[in-house]
Amino acid sequence: MNKILVLHGPNLNRLGRREIDVYGKLTLEEIDQALTEKSSELGVSIECFQSNHEGSLIDRIHDANGKYQGILINPAAFSHYSYAIRDALAGTGLPMVEIHLSNIYSREPFRHISIISAVVDGVISGFGLEGYLLGLEALVKIIEKR
Amino acid sequence: MNKILVLHGPNLNRLGRREIDVYGKLTLEEIDQALTEKSSELGVSIECFQSNHEGSLIDRIHDANGKYQGILINPAAFSHYSYAIRDALAGTGLPMVEIHLSNIYSREPFRHISIISAVVDGVISGFGLEGYLLGLEALVKIIEKR
Amino acid sequence: MNKILVLHGPNLNRLGRREIDVYGKLTLEEIDQALTEKSSELGVSIECFQSNHEGSLIDRIHDANGKYQGILINPAAFSHYSYAIRDALAGTGLPMVEIHLSNIYSREPFRHISIISAVVDGVISGFGLEGYLLGLEALVKIIEKR
Amino acid sequence: MNKILVLHGPNLNRLGRREIDVYGKLTLEEIDQALTEKSSELGVSIECFQSNHEGSLIDRIHDANGKYQGILINPAAFSHYSYAIRDALAGTGLPMVEIHLSNIYSREPFRHISIISAVVDGVISGFGLEGYLLGLEALVKIIEKR
Amino acid sequence: MNKILVLHGPNLNRLGRREIDVYGKLTLEEIDQALTEKSSELGVSIECFQSNHEGSLIDRIHDANGKYQGILINPAAFSHYSYAIRDALAGTGLPMVEIHLSNIYSREPFRHISIISAVVDGVISGFGLEGYLLGLEALVKIIEKR
Amino acid sequence: MNKILVLHGPNLNRLGRREIDVYGKLTLEEIDQALTEKSSELGVSIECFQSNHEGSLIDRIHDANGKYQGILINPAAFSHYSYAIRDALAGTGLPMVEIHLSNIYSREPFRHISIISAVVDGVISGFGLEGYLLGLEALVKIIEKR
Amino acid sequence: MNKILVLHGPNLNRLGRREIDVYGKLTLEEIDQALTEKSSELGVSIECFQSNHEGSLIDRIHDANGKYQGILINPAAFSHYSYAIRDALAGTGLPMVEIHLSNIYSREPFRHISIISAVVDGVISGFGLEGYLLGLEALVKIIEKR
Amino acid sequence: MNKILVLHGPNLNRLGRREIDVYGKLTLEEIDQALTEKSSELGVSIECFQSNHEGSLIDRIHDANGKYQGILINPAAFSHYSYAIRDALAGTGLPMVEIHLSNIYSREPFRHISIISAVVDGVISGFGLEGYLLGLEALVKIIEKR
Amino acid sequence: MNKILVLHGPNLNRLGRREIDVYGKLTLEEIDQALTEKSSELGVSIECFQSNHEGSLIDRIHDANGKYQGILINPAAFSHYSYAIRDALAGTGLPMVEIHLSNIYSREPFRHISIISAVVDGVISGFGLEGYLLGLEALVKIIEKR
Amino acid sequence: MNKILVLHGPNLNRLGRREIDVYGKLTLEEIDQALTEKSSELGVSIECFQSNHEGSLIDRIHDANGKYQGILINPAAFSHYSYAIRDALAGTGLPMVEIHLSNIYSREPFRHISIISAVVDGVISGFGLEGYLLGLEALVKIIEKR
Amino acid sequence: MNKILVLHGPNLNRLGRREIDVYGKLTLEEIDQALTEKSSELGVSIECFQSNHEGSLIDRIHDANGKYQGILINPAAFSHYSYAIRDALAGTGLPMVEIHLSNIYSREPFRHISIISAVVDGVISGFGLEGYLLGLEALVKIIEKR
Amino acid sequence: MNKILVLHGPNLNRLGRREIDVYGKLTLEEIDQALTEKSSELGVSIECFQSNHEGSLIDRIHDANGKYQGILINPAAFSHYSYAIRDALAGTGLPMVEIHLSNIYSREPFRHISIISAVVDGVISGFGLEGYLLGLEALVKIIEKR
Repeated sequence: MNKILVLHGPNLNRLGRREIDVYGKLTLEEIDQALTEKSSELGVSIECFQSNHEGSLIDRIHDANGKYQGILINPAAFSHYSYAIRDALAGTGLPMVEIHLSNIYSREPFRHISIISAVVDGVISGFGLEGYLLGLEALVKIIEKR
Repeated sequence: MNKILVLHGPNLNRLGRREIDVYGKLTLEEIDQALTEKSSELGVSIECFQSNHEGSLIDRIHDANGKYQGILINPAAFSHYSYAIRDALAGTGLPMVEIHLSNIYSREPFRHISIISAVVDGVISGFGLEGYLLGLEALVKIIEKR
Repeated sequence: MNKILVLHGPNLNRLGRREIDVYGKLTLEEIDQALTEKSSELGVSIECFQSNHEGSLIDRIHDANGKYQGILINPAAFSHYSYAIRDALAGTGLPMVEIHLSNIYSREPFRHISIISAVVDGVISGFGLEGYLLGLEALVKIIEKR
Repeated sequence: MNKILVLHGPNLNRLGRREIDVYGKLTLEEIDQALTEKSSELGVSIECFQSNHEGSLIDRIHDANGKYQGILINPAAFSHYSYAIRDALAGTGLPMVEIHLSNIYSREPFRHISIISAVVDGVISGFGLEGYLLGLEALVKIIEKR
Repeated sequence: MNKILVLHGPNLNRLGRREIDVYGKLTLEEIDQALTEKSSELGVSIECFQSNHEGSLIDRIHDANGKYQGILINPAAFSHYSYAIRDALAGTGLPMVEIHLSNIYSREPFRHISIISAVVDGVISGFGLEGYLLGLEALVKIIEKR
Repeated sequence: MNKILVLHGPNLNRLGRREIDVYGKLTLEEIDQALTEKSSELGVSIECFQSNHEGSLIDRIHDANGKYQGILINPAAFSHYSYAIRDALAGTGLPMVEIHLSNIYSREPFRHISIISAVVDGVISGFGLEGYLLGLEALVKIIEKR
Repeated sequence: MNKILVLHGPNLNRLGRREIDVYGKLTLEEIDQALTEKSSELGVSIECFQSNHEGSLIDRIHDANGKYQGILINPAAFSHYSYAIRDALAGTGLPMVEIHLSNIYSREPFRHISIISAVVDGVISGFGLEGYLLGLEALVKIIEKR
Repeated sequence: MNKILVLHGPNLNRLGRREIDVYGKLTLEEIDQALTEKSSELGVSIECFQSNHEGSLIDRIHDANGKYQGILINPAAFSHYSYAIRDALAGTGLPMVEIHLSNIYSREPFRHISIISAVVDGVISGFGLEGYLLGLEALVKIIEKR
Repeated sequence: MNKILVLHGPNLNRLGRREIDVYGKLTLEEIDQALTEKSSELGVSIECFQSNHEGSLIDRIHDANGKYQGILINPAAFSHYSYAIRDALAGTGLPMVEIHLSNIYSREPFRHISIISAVVDGVISGFGLEGYLLGLEALVKIIEKR
Repeated sequence: MNKILVLHGPNLNRLGRREIDVYGKLTLEEIDQALTEKSSELGVSIECFQSNHEGSLIDRIHDANGKYQGILINPAAFSHYSYAIRDALAGTGLPMVEIHLSNIYSREPFRHISIISAVVDGVISGFGLEGYLLGLEALVKIIEKR
Repeated sequence: MNKILVLHGPNLNRLGRREIDVYGKLTLEEIDQALTEKSSELGVSIECFQSNHEGSLIDRIHDANGKYQGILINPAAFSHYSYAIRDALAGTGLPMVEIHLSNIYSREPFRHISIISAVVDGVISGFGLEGYLLGLEALVKIIEKR
Repeated sequence: MNKILVLHGPNLNRLGRREIDVYGKLTLEEIDQALTEKSSELGVSIECFQSNHEGSLIDRIHDANGKYQGILINPAAFSHYSYAIRDALAGTGLPMVEIHLSNIYSREPFRHISIISAVVDGVISGFGLEGYLLGLEALVKIIEKR
């Protein structure tokens, strides 16, 4: 059975508790719960990991080879400057999908550019929880095609 | 039953016949066919329209109010300069999802910025045909939530 | 009797029906009606044309020589990228006035620059319907001075 | 009876005496005279003030509240750098119209941007004396609508 | 016998009638006439098409495969912003030569960059009618080498 | 007893009367009153001066040597372009503190850069009246350390 | 009694031991000691935390809600690129004051812009230890006003 | 006998008293004295005027026509932003020479560009008092050639 | 009989020996041979000169007046920075054509701008040897028209 | 005996396992082994540390004073944004050499600038393992000279 | 007796023969003649050298130490890119004055910046022959002061 | 025995005689002497060449094929603009190492970018004489690996 690593970047542990007008009341637990349900439907298993520490995310990405068949990542604020995460992802050779809860292209200018996007297979931005589920579906399709 | 307008921008009528190394062998007819099947599953109907004429796409967008409940659009090259299409879309007040077949963020620099993205609900980039189907799904969810 | 060509750019046919908070309830028909009344007062005749098609506007501009003594144009979104319309206007040698319903200099940055402005006689921005009437008056004055 | 403050920026006192090939033979006295005549027609009164001193213009703008119902201003060279005048104007809450004798968008690049334009109701550029008269008309219309 | 599609962009139908100081008295009919004569000498046939409509030019480019062995194009003002025409040309796989009547590199800054140039085989700029004839010759040489 | 020159830049005389949503109801007289009280506590005396005239502020800065032991300045809009005030301040050799009532770094982009900041000892931005009092306190500490 | 979280960014643990010509002999312990004394005077309690780990600072910021009534932060080098800390701070909804020991606006260009400044209530830059004390005072005033 | 207007911009009245390491001990009185002596040698008379007020300098420039045959100006900090002085100078039609005491091209970047230089006959930068004398000589030569 | 100076810039003597994947096996001797043959056909004579020394090329350009009726130049890498060659060419008053073997607009960004192009009559880029022959032909046409 | 701290930035632990086409099969263990051998030859001892955590690298840099006489660092992706590491290094006062395995100046543009380079003694880029050994040699020379 | 080296950059040997509308009929021989006469008056001797070869100018600059007491240089087009000449001049430690015949600040933008200006004692731009004479005078004054 | 060409760019012949505070007392002869000694150790022979003439350096680079197995180059000021040297080097196909005596990345901004670096195998910057020796060593290693 294919296994997928789900990575959540900094501040996402605060979902549902911070800036509710921007991100809504959805919590990270609910996202992980919904992803787990969706993964059963799709016949894959997932493992979720959130960290505010750039280095911890990199450690998990390094660890992914051999253990997982794909990565679903919401890099959050790291999208805009962490070349270290970009290099780590580019080094895995695994299928990868990037998710953003809000539509980053209609927010502040510094959020319009994700330096991560150039090394992933595809990007989904602006559909809230739904975006995660669509991303998982897309990722599974890419894995199955390989 | 909700109706959705599917718009394909310039050169997409040439899919499967031009630059097969970039876009693959998929044709526009196959995309429309797949979308039609997906729409039955989702309980909505769709209408597809492709044009190389900016003005014709704008005319169809204007026409959408009252007739459709959402727009799924792949603006192709118009993504990078047609403020006229942007204004037309912004004026509809309908739910909208933007699709790109390839991951525009890992191609030439002039393709990294879509001026359309700021006025739609969400963007899906880089999953080929799959991206259209995910986009339709996401759009239907947004329509149903309203 | 002097004849004037009035050109309306993309999306202006939707006035009064789209983004009422920005543009108000005024319709294009009402603008054309007001311009017609004003033209009688000023002793000129006008002909109005709206299109969402850049090429159709260019065709009409080419056609203007010999038929009209001046052009009143609201290029709308084409203001920001249509070098083709700019070249067409520059080629007529006719007096020309550019109109914007809203004050483009206090909106989004991409609207601050009109590439059309460098080839017309004058620009009026930000007075709604009134701006059209003032523009017509100004244009007639320029024609009479020649 | 509504009263309007007409402000002329630096060097405009030299009109008709400097750079006649650019600005023509029109003098500031003639502009003020024409505005006075137009104001009677429109049923308003005006008061004109020219200064080469940024601070003196700001003092007059501050003074305008309560005394005048609108401001007609040609900021001349201050258009391009006086954030102090911009702040003063923004602070009045009065209707304001900005005038430029020549079409600033077809002159040297540093004249293409007026930092004042973002805080006024509308801008008229490129019609010489006529632009002042149209501006007065437009301003009166805005005052009457409030 | 090899067939070549000759495309003329917006405003070129006005040659000889507009801005005679920049473009001279040469008309588009004379260009097409000279190209036809040159084509007999070179043993090829040509078909000429001018349009002010971006979409119509794209339609013709799509249509070129199978019918023509090469494209000679003067994109005029579309050179500076039409990524849609660029994508259409790039998709044909045919030999292509880009022509400009005047030397675009010594005119206004916005004309120094042609976004089309990166996808054609070669560029000829600044020789008037002569440039078209040289371009046709160059194009025939490329076709024969293939 | 140490004496401090307090300088208020353009439009600050309008505090409490203009843009109350941004600056609140606080007046300049109340700021000067509060500073005077604070100065007694700190054992210094102050002299306050407001002007909308750049030259008058420069004259007062020149005058400061020998008369005052420090300068507390809110340059307001002059912060963004008056190199003349910057040069005047740099020439005094006195301790100087720059104050902004609102947090200029979270307002319009043109307010993010103060060209004055590079020549003063410290900057306090965003605490309203409180900022002036803290600035006076900081300035006195610097004077006492010299 | 109100509690305040004091955060010190990377390298500040080295104060007094590194680059003494820039930062003086002051140590972090002395800053914390002075802040503690000041807090008693002001009737609040404080808790100080320094880290060179971006993630650890974010964890503490997340933890602040409910526990503290305000944050006093010197982000040090993180000021210039950590959008993750910016997002964390913006998410707390607490009053926040940003401190810099030296006047960052008169140092190297990359230090002129703090991306943190846009989300805090106020900024104090360039007064050494004194700046921390003034910042604490300002923060307490803001908390009391709420 | 030819008369020349000598204008000194903001802060130059402080020469010899401020930033002696940059500008030396030379005072403005000594410059004016040396210029007066030089003018006798050259058979012209001069009148010197210094102001920290932009408007006062403009008033004097306007006044120059008819009274003087040339202008020698050190715009000091106004060199970098006063388009109003630039316009005033450009409007005189008189021979003009721009002087800078220090070599502005080897100081801070914001001093590298003088917006005044484009409208004067020549620029002399970096020779201290000597530069004024050379400038006067050059100006007299230009006047005599006319 | 008209004489033409053919100038080859730096590194062109290495053609056919360096970077064969970019420039092919064509040697400079073959280009000169082909140009000589073409020149007989056209009834003109040519003289060819290659140098890696900017100064030597300038000396030859200076020498051209009186001796030659036109210049055909491939400035190679000097295209991108030699304002000295640009000035030398601009000073001749002769007809001039600029050649590039490869299509410089589709190579590295620093090759997209030729500072030479603004002072020549026309530019031909991207046809290999053929471009030289076309350039010679075009140049002869321009000479004959004068 | 002099001791040297060798620091390896993020993703370097993956050497030999990721992107073998760019970095070859060399592993970090082999680099450390080669450095250890080289250090015996040079009569110094080394200690190697790799981390994906920016904060852990900073902690080690802080710790270096007193323990080591120099630092050899390959900051990897942190080269492009970690001002925190830059500040930490600048604060040590130790001799430092920066190493890059590949030639960063011939890779993607974002890798051309290392913000670390301005604070180290020298940079070696593009020699693979050899670069580390050369860097160690250079560092020892600098230490011995002090 | 002090000796001065006079250097003329590329294309200046063509003075009086090229672009007479820009540079007038003055020849380089006349400049050298006038400088020689002026030098007798000033009690110094000069040696003049012109070259179109950057390297030859550098050789002469290197040669200047010991032989000359100052350098008067018109770098012509090399002003805009020759960092090699800049470094050579900076290395002499001699007094140096930079001359431009025309006012480079009012010509094309690429001529507004001279990279040489930052390393000379002063710059004189825009007085034709007179500028050379003034420059010589200024240079002699600087030499005598040393 | 492998032979290596050592190239020194402009002004390096002045080492030890110019700007001793920046470059020290080291002369070029001492560098060449040290390189010769090092080359014996490494079992290769070297030939050194310095020139202030860009063209002469290019001639020597062209000449290198067949005669040498590698190039060690310090392009000095040519690093920042000589695309001609860059093209010459790129055309050799030989191993190449670029040396800078000082750390160019911590000097003036125009020295931060070397356009040469993109075409060489590696860059060593900031170790004085030592850098040359390390560079020779690195170059020999690369040659031996081929």
